[in-house]
Amino acid sequence: MGRTLKRTLLAGGIGLGLLVFVLSSCQQGGQTPGVSGLSKEAQSVIKERGLKPQDVVAALKTYLPTGQYDEYIMFSSGGHSGQVLVIGIPSMRLLRVIGVFTPEPWQGWGYSKETEEILAEGNVDGKKITWGDTHHPALSETDADYDGQFLFINDKAHARVAVIDLRDFETKQIVKNPIAISDHGGAMVTPNTEYVIEGGQYATPLGWKYASLDDYAKAYRGMVTLWKFDRKKGRIDKKQSFALELPPYWQDLFDAGKGVSEGWIFGNSFNTEMSTGGVEEGNPPFEAGASQRDMDYLHVINWKKAEEVVKAGKYKVINGFKVIPIETAVKEGILYFVPEPKSPHGVDVTPGGEYIVVAGKLDPHVTIYSFEKIQKAIQEKKFEGKDPYGVPILSFDAVVEAQVEVGLGPLHTQFDNQGYAYTSLFLESAVARWTLGGPYSKLHKEEPWTVVQKIPVHYNVGHIAAAEGDTKDPDGKYLVSLNKWSVDRFTNVGPLLPQNFQLIDISKPGTNMQLLYDMPIGLGEPHYAQIIKADKLNPWEVYPEIGWNPGTQSKDPNGITAGQEKIVRKGKTVEIWMTAVRSHYNPERVVVRKGDRVIWHITNIERAKDATHGFGLPLWNINLSIEPGETQTIEFVADKEGVFPFYCTEFCSALHLEMMGYFIVKP
Amino acid sequence: MGRTLKRTLLAGGIGLGLLVFVLSSCQQGGQTPGVSGLSKEAQSVIKERGLKPQDVVAALKTYLPTGQYDEYIMFSSGGHSGQVLVIGIPSMRLLRVIGVFTPEPWQGWGYSKETEEILAEGNVDGKKITWGDTHHPALSETDADYDGQFLFINDKAHARVAVIDLRDFETKQIVKNPIAISDHGGAMVTPNTEYVIEGGQYATPLGWKYASLDDYAKAYRGMVTLWKFDRKKGRIDKKQSFALELPPYWQDLFDAGKGVSEGWIFGNSFNTEMSTGGVEEGNPPFEAGASQRDMDYLHVINWKKAEEVVKAGKYKVINGFKVIPIETAVKEGILYFVPEPKSPHGVDVTPGGEYIVVAGKLDPHVTIYSFEKIQKAIQEKKFEGKDPYGVPILSFDAVVEAQVEVGLGPLHTQFDNQGYAYTSLFLESAVARWTLGGPYSKLHKEEPWTVVQKIPVHYNVGHIAAAEGDTKDPDGKYLVSLNKWSVDRFTNVGPLLPQNFQLIDISKPGTNMQLLYDMPIGLGEPHYAQIIKADKLNPWEVYPEIGWNPGTQSKDPNGITAGQEKIVRKGKTVEIWMTAVRSHYNPERVVVRKGDRVIWHITNIERAKDATHGFGLPLWNINLSIEPGETQTIEFVADKEGVFPFYCTEFCSALHLEMMGYFIVKP
Repeated sequence: MGRTLKRTLLAGGIGLGLLVFVLSSCQQGGQTPGVSGLSKEAQSVIKERGLKPQDVVAALKTYLPTGQYDEYIMFSSGGHSGQVLVIGIPSMRLLRVIGVFTPEPWQGWGYSKETEEILAEGNVDGKKITWGDTHHPALSETDADYDGQFLFINDKAHARVAVIDLRDFETKQIVKNPIAISDHGGAMVTPNTEYVIEGGQYATPLGWKYASLDDYAKAYRGMVTLWKFDRKKGRIDKKQSFALELPPYWQDLFDAGKGVSEGWIFGNSFNTEMSTGGVEEGNPPFEAGASQRDMDYLHVINWKKAEEVVKAGKYKVINGFKVIPIETAVKEGILYFVPEPKSPHGVDVTPGGEYIVVAGKLDPHVTIYSFEKIQKAIQEKKFEGKDPYGVPILSFDAVVEAQVEVGLGPLHTQFDNQGYAYTSLFLESAVARWTLGGPYSKLHKEEPWTVVQKIPVHYNVGHIAAAEGDTKDPDGKYLVSLNKWSVDRFTNVGPLLPQNFQLIDISKPGTNMQLLYDMPIGLGEPHYAQIIKADKLNPWEVYPEIGWNPGTQSKDPNGITAGQEKIVRKGKTVEIWMTAVRSHYNPERVVVRKGDRVIWHITNIERAKDATHGFGLPLWNINLSIEPGETQTIEFVADKEGVFPFYCTEFCSALHLEMMGYFIVKP
Repeated sequence: MGRTLKRTLLAGGIGLGLLVFVLSSCQQGGQTPGVSGLSKEAQSVIKERGLKPQDVVAALKTYLPTGQYDEYIMFSSGGHSGQVLVIGIPSMRLLRVIGVFTPEPWQGWGYSKETEEILAEGNVDGKKITWGDTHHPALSETDADYDGQFLFINDKAHARVAVIDLRDFETKQIVKNPIAISDHGGAMVTPNTEYVIEGGQYATPLGWKYASLDDYAKAYRGMVTLWKFDRKKGRIDKKQSFALELPPYWQDLFDAGKGVSEGWIFGNSFNTEMSTGGVEEGNPPFEAGASQRDMDYLHVINWKKAEEVVKAGKYKVINGFKVIPIETAVKEGILYFVPEPKSPHGVDVTPGGEYIVVAGKLDPHVTIYSFEKIQKAIQEKKFEGKDPYGVPILSFDAVVEAQVEVGLGPLHTQFDNQGYAYTSLFLESAVARWTLGGPYSKLHKEEPWTVVQKIPVHYNVGHIAAAEGDTKDPDGKYLVSLNKWSVDRFTNVGPLLPQNFQLIDISKPGTNMQLLYDMPIGLGEPHYAQIIKADKLNPWEVYPEIGWNPGTQSKDPNGITAGQEKIVRKGKTVEIWMTAVRSHYNPERVVVRKGDRVIWHITNIERAKDATHGFGLPLWNINLSIEPGETQTIEFVADKEGVFPFYCTEFCSALHLEMMGYFIVKP
């Protein structure tokens, strides 16, 4: 300090006016709080906490003052929690967990008649399943852009797809794939949500049949299912849905064409080696056996033609479900293969639909295919031959637009509004920003098809999600890196560590990506996420009418208002119509006889936002979350005598503890 | 600006040295990034986002740069999610959800043999329960201070208590209260964790019996249970545990005396009116019926004497459990009542144990009782009479130290290291800071027993938690307000809204409490939380040995290392010993016959931190999370034929998708 002072004094002739101006603005910054500087308190916090300049910027970019709203909402899979996570961006705060495949008592998911019935739609071969492995959320789209109405998500473990209504953020339907046991390439939607795509993963005999691994090539098959979505009903229409039989390669991810490629879907595959493992018998384990060939197959599928073929009745029926056989798909020009290097994982279509970007996880490149070239090659029959199942293989050289060496272990690609693509690099623990060519060249200043910057992430990134980054109209701004390992990032909380979502600022072009925030995910292992502008969502604040049934999204015949409460006995069945309001139930005493069947309808007659009431009843495993206006029903047999207090499990008022009643079962 | 400049110029004689000094430090701040100021980028972010000076300070106080650790860890109940939340402070990030009463597939909680068995300990009257209403977490204590070893938590809905081992953050035991159906005043611990306290809530006939509400006063009872904790075994010892029978008032919260009051516990109660509700019959509802009297009863209990009385055999046995009858408790000087205004909710003992602070939710005061005066009144028999059950009631005036008018709807009180107490005000949606008297007067400059500041919170605060704020040695610094409603605080995510945890800086004395952060809780309705210094926790990074069984916290006889894998058939039972390592299972093919009983042991032989493997198997509802070194077992009957891919549900390597195998059930 002394030295600086001395030198400046020697310099002499600095104009007094300038000094005073600086002094003045500095006082504003250094003393009085203001936009251009920092309060003394803020300065001492920076010093005390050792924050670096980039930390200060990151803090200021992500902090949301009380009562202010996030600009984006991210819907993330919860992985094998079986749920969906709803996260605000840029604050990276968990706003809600949506119960999907796993019962969740806080929201009463799976603890009422209505919600148990939805979960039971997902029973597998008659067996109750209480978990799922959610992988890829897909927001409904209109004209290839998120419309904020519905969310779909798959369960890899059991090949199921769920439908969530974004009016109330609740799961409305679960469909079990009738031919496949596991899936992976779902849920993705076609540009107007005509179909929800569900591609398989590990090949098995279709329709849940037994076959020996010795008959793998003959008896095992892959598949992709197109679930028809009825937007008006908000439900998948199973009868109008169909699947394509595929060779027993392990189909991985799918993406729908859009813009110029609308009408087509693209899926990749691995284990075209058809390895069947068996490390215990001296065979190469799957990790080696499925990684021997230099090329696997990109699947190029004309779904509009497939739809026509099904309408024309050219399908077989497996387990009651329409399936287009491979030979029909080939004959009708529905299915083509393209070589893709090597054990690919991500397949992502550029915003305008011109290119398909494939990342081979054992190859340091992303390979960019031109849809136009693919179409040309199909018309000109530029084939390299056929695969063992007769599927024509397009010439690699005829359809490739470019290859970009992005780094080690490339997986998934997203897009922004500045002509950049972003690819996750699992082995490097980094995200690469690279330039698109063709029509995107005008959006950036760099060479097309070139890596611009890599940003390290912590650690082992799987998917990445950019703001609206897989739509026809990406927003740029933010990218989230869904890191699988956190290792040393957070305070140790035992051998099971959280995942780590890192928020990256991608608003500035060139080499200016900036890491903003680490968000631990200590409740699941998310796979993919989509980020939607928050103002596209318009959920209800309370249910539209008193007596609303979210299962049907309409008034429940058993929904009542104050004054209509009653208890009616018919033989050995006791039916109760109850209301809940701050802070009592009506009735408060329910007396039955041991062995009675109890049917209990509870309506929350509140109209105030956030005035949720719970209903917890011991012994019969019941907890409801009844939002304002909602009616829920429970049904059980009162098979134990005793005195059972039921109570409101949501802290609803100062006299919330008094909101209870006695359910009494007489001997 | 111009005006300031002019005035300063006119002032003239400012020493050049000073100006240059300011210029120098200002350049550092205003232009170049540095400790004392802001980078240009930071300034433009503040402007663009409209951050106020207090927002900037809050952002800087709560932001954690990547890889840095939180200073405190908060263990929060998850409410009717049935779980425990682990949150870092000051970053307010959710580090982990611990599965307790509710199965949770991400962590495999309830999906393996070992974890199913622990959950089954919590069966109620033989019925499987898959949820709980967790209320009050209690960290184990040594000498009335958190020792970081164990965590206890109760389930209000079913009167259960769980034990969590903080070496691996997993639940090890669930005990079901044998006499009560619901609880509330648990879990709290005595100063050396001799006992875990579980107080009842809604009175019922003890031991799960039936009795008519007409016989309420005669047949219904309250209770408090003292669960003996065996620290060496890390388990509650049911045989050495006991309960006290209490009148059928609704006992609410308990707190253990410490320091001068060690050996005693204090609990409050409401509904001393013994209202039995019945709004449907024209009776006042509970909320009115239980709120008629001006005074309820603080329960003052000598647990050391109770322990002796039990040892002397002076108990009755209900449902196999030792229970001290009311009359014995009275006769032996174990139980006293003190009048407390009005429908109280919180009861909290000051750090040194001198005072008991009770907040009556329908009274604007907190009432502070002196333990010394209570002892004196007992010795001098200063009684106001007896309650209908013969319990002596100490004279209110003889035992009260002070009353402080804190505001509307006071609930719970916490303490800091500056002589302040903090009380949540439900109806005002605020937290009041007020001064303690007596020995605490020397720690602050204000009048004792006086409100110093109220800070608004958003909204409807229940419990609050200060850093180590219920121990003998509170840290001050941070306080979290556990708000029940969030209303307009966050982007709307449907009719079911998140709760809101607000972080408040309490480090500065006087009127300087500052709101720092809003954390939405969208996965449960937390009740109480405790905040421990992070460096008191020392969890394992990986399990101590390969083949570790977390259920027994010792080596599992079925844990194996590489090379020991095998499949053994004995009659119709097939037993598998499998290893998991990046990136394959061994064996990869498991073939059984339909109807076989399958016993399957899987050991994760990794020693690297974070190298968790999953094991998902469709149809039989199985998903395991196997941490490095861990062995887990599953058992089921292969009752369906077919081909079932099992796979690793944790993304463990670039070839994670290849980490799979086929479970084949032959017809």
